[in-house]
Amino acid sequence: MISKRALNVPASPIRRLVPFADEAKKKGIHVYHLNIGQPDIETPPQWFEYIEKFKTKVVSYTHSQGILPLREKFSEYYKKWDINIEPDEIIVTNGGSEAIMFALGVVCDPNDEVIVIEPFYANYAGFAAYLNVKLVPVTTTPENGYRMPTKEEFEKVITSKTKAILFSNPSNPTGVVYTKEELQILVDIALEHNLVIISDEVYREFAFDDKKAISAYEFEEIHDRLIIVDSVSKRYSACGARIGTFLTKNKNFYSAALKFAQARLSPTEITQYGTIGLLNSEESYIQNVINEYKKRRDVAFEEIKKIPGVIAHKPEGAFYLAAKLPVNNAEEFIKWMLSNFSIDNKTTMVAPLSGFYATPNLGTSEIRIAYVLDSEKIKDAIKILAKGIEKYKTLTVDSSIK
Amino acid sequence: MISKRALNVPASPIRRLVPFADEAKKKGIHVYHLNIGQPDIETPPQWFEYIEKFKTKVVSYTHSQGILPLREKFSEYYKKWDINIEPDEIIVTNGGSEAIMFALGVVCDPNDEVIVIEPFYANYAGFAAYLNVKLVPVTTTPENGYRMPTKEEFEKVITSKTKAILFSNPSNPTGVVYTKEELQILVDIALEHNLVIISDEVYREFAFDDKKAISAYEFEEIHDRLIIVDSVSKRYSACGARIGTFLTKNKNFYSAALKFAQARLSPTEITQYGTIGLLNSEESYIQNVINEYKKRRDVAFEEIKKIPGVIAHKPEGAFYLAAKLPVNNAEEFIKWMLSNFSIDNKTTMVAPLSGFYATPNLGTSEIRIAYVLDSEKIKDAIKILAKGIEKYKTLTVDSSIK
Repeated sequence: MISKRALNVPASPIRRLVPFADEAKKKGIHVYHLNIGQPDIETPPQWFEYIEKFKTKVVSYTHSQGILPLREKFSEYYKKWDINIEPDEIIVTNGGSEAIMFALGVVCDPNDEVIVIEPFYANYAGFAAYLNVKLVPVTTTPENGYRMPTKEEFEKVITSKTKAILFSNPSNPTGVVYTKEELQILVDIALEHNLVIISDEVYREFAFDDKKAISAYEFEEIHDRLIIVDSVSKRYSACGARIGTFLTKNKNFYSAALKFAQARLSPTEITQYGTIGLLNSEESYIQNVINEYKKRRDVAFEEIKKIPGVIAHKPEGAFYLAAKLPVNNAEEFIKWMLSNFSIDNKTTMVAPLSGFYATPNLGTSEIRIAYVLDSEKIKDAIKILAKGIEKYKTLTVDSSIK
Repeated sequence: MISKRALNVPASPIRRLVPFADEAKKKGIHVYHLNIGQPDIETPPQWFEYIEKFKTKVVSYTHSQGILPLREKFSEYYKKWDINIEPDEIIVTNGGSEAIMFALGVVCDPNDEVIVIEPFYANYAGFAAYLNVKLVPVTTTPENGYRMPTKEEFEKVITSKTKAILFSNPSNPTGVVYTKEELQILVDIALEHNLVIISDEVYREFAFDDKKAISAYEFEEIHDRLIIVDSVSKRYSACGARIGTFLTKNKNFYSAALKFAQARLSPTEITQYGTIGLLNSEESYIQNVINEYKKRRDVAFEEIKKIPGVIAHKPEGAFYLAAKLPVNNAEEFIKWMLSNFSIDNKTTMVAPLSGFYATPNLGTSEIRIAYVLDSEKIKDAIKILAKGIEKYKTLTVDSSIK
């Protein structure tokens, strides 16, 4: 009585190892959670102020596209980033998740294909399975720093069923920030092959050093084929707000997505008011957050590159570091860490990167580190990881050692 | 570049006439909104108390199935209704809407069929189009009070692609509360034809006089093929909370829905705490709400039955009244009311029932009245409706008059 689509949804690679972490905790071991992108940074106080300030007698549906004052604030925010999106080009969604689902639903019928750059944000696979869309990967590698594939590599996988390219920039899980030249490849392909660009820009703020996260919006020639997906979760440390946005200047895309939005009636009322608070927070808040992540990135990369046999490039953005470890099966290694290894009663949990690939058997030696803890903890956590790798390599009984 | 599924989503029959209401308001006319199930009754104060009480530094993701204290409270609530659902048989969803989408996704692949009793809750059609599921209607009529069709009528439409029966009880939009014998028909069909029952019970509390809303859970023989969809929106006047539940004792259904839930990460954090408040509100709250709706139901029915040529049965539950008007095209009549008719600068807006049918050209003379305003307003609103019908019938130029 179960649908094939339900069977096809992969279990979350981020969440499926949680039982092993729970077991470790039961044994009194402290687990450093570098496996999930749940920041520890405080949410701006304006969230709580606006929530408390919002008084109403009846907790009501809002407009399906979200309340106007919030869409106006979002429009202001985007204009600061030179993204000229008007309030009526914005639909407020239940997190970036719903915005991605709307985008896939607007563009794809069952069995249509969407190109993704693998490794990609793992939940894309869940949304695609739910909507019976086929994700077609173009592969990047740890050796080349997960950079943008060539135009030819994309063209090899385009078929008559290809409808869109979906990608995140800065990239979750690789931390890559694409250059203008790299993005131009996607733009050229979209124009030549009549594809839609779905650009996931939830890490917009998080580009370090001299890097800049270039919005797909900067390419004017694709405005009529562009959907931008966004979320306040990461930049305001407000994952539990579940407020995202679906942005497009294409009126047909907008009307189609609005019909999906009307069917589910409206986003949550009170969190829309809370989000106005987030968008009214001090400008210094975001700058401090960026500085903090940069510091963590530096520590994480410094520690990871000390580990013999690890392949990693310095992340340029988001708050993830992808690395290839000197083990055959990173998922087995992570389980072993949680079940058998600790130092001073502490161990480290990371995410296996294989779940971020659509191609079977790729990424098996790779991991994703979310640097969402403070620098001291990250340093300690990666030192423990290093010791774990050292020990794991000596276990000659384990077949997964290189 | 737009998908067929997006084109297939019908515009909401409840919301698509809103521009006519907006025009009326611009002319200074007060519009009685009996078109949408947005109650005017105050939300329990515990909602706001629990929201203010919930303090955290970081607004975080919760478990994908919802926080345990909320699932425990829900389990207690269901047990009071003799629905023995444990916390790990509950997934907290973004309103009943998401619960319905999860249910359809768990059971159906594209082109699979789900039987609905028409007229049905209009947004079922939106969810079905989104997920490429075909709704197959079995028709009820105003003349027979929209009662349950016979077993034979259901069996006529069952094919190898039929996977489930989806219905609401008490019924939105008809106000029917099904008897045990009527529900037995669905149970028998589900067992004989190996179908899943998706029972939408969001109006559970709202059964008037000696009627009782019987949960599909009362039929033990279907526990392994039952998904109950629920929401706090109506019973606590908390539509903007967007908190619903997906309930099942079938562990395969549960795991499949949980994978969908994990892909979208989690429900909103703070509203889950607010909902614990709702479930901790005074028992008298619900009783007062029921009494209030009963009073409104009585007034609405008393007024509507005075109108010559109207066919309506007394609603037994929910807060809707479906009626056949002596006009050929109710949607045109509603537009005419909003554009051309008012008494003392007031007019009345109802929902056209045609959008609640899947069969083309059915329900064109029918409307749905949501009795969500206080009795005096409802009385006035339906008196205005009556005068409108009287006037409309004299307009010999209008082709839609019978």
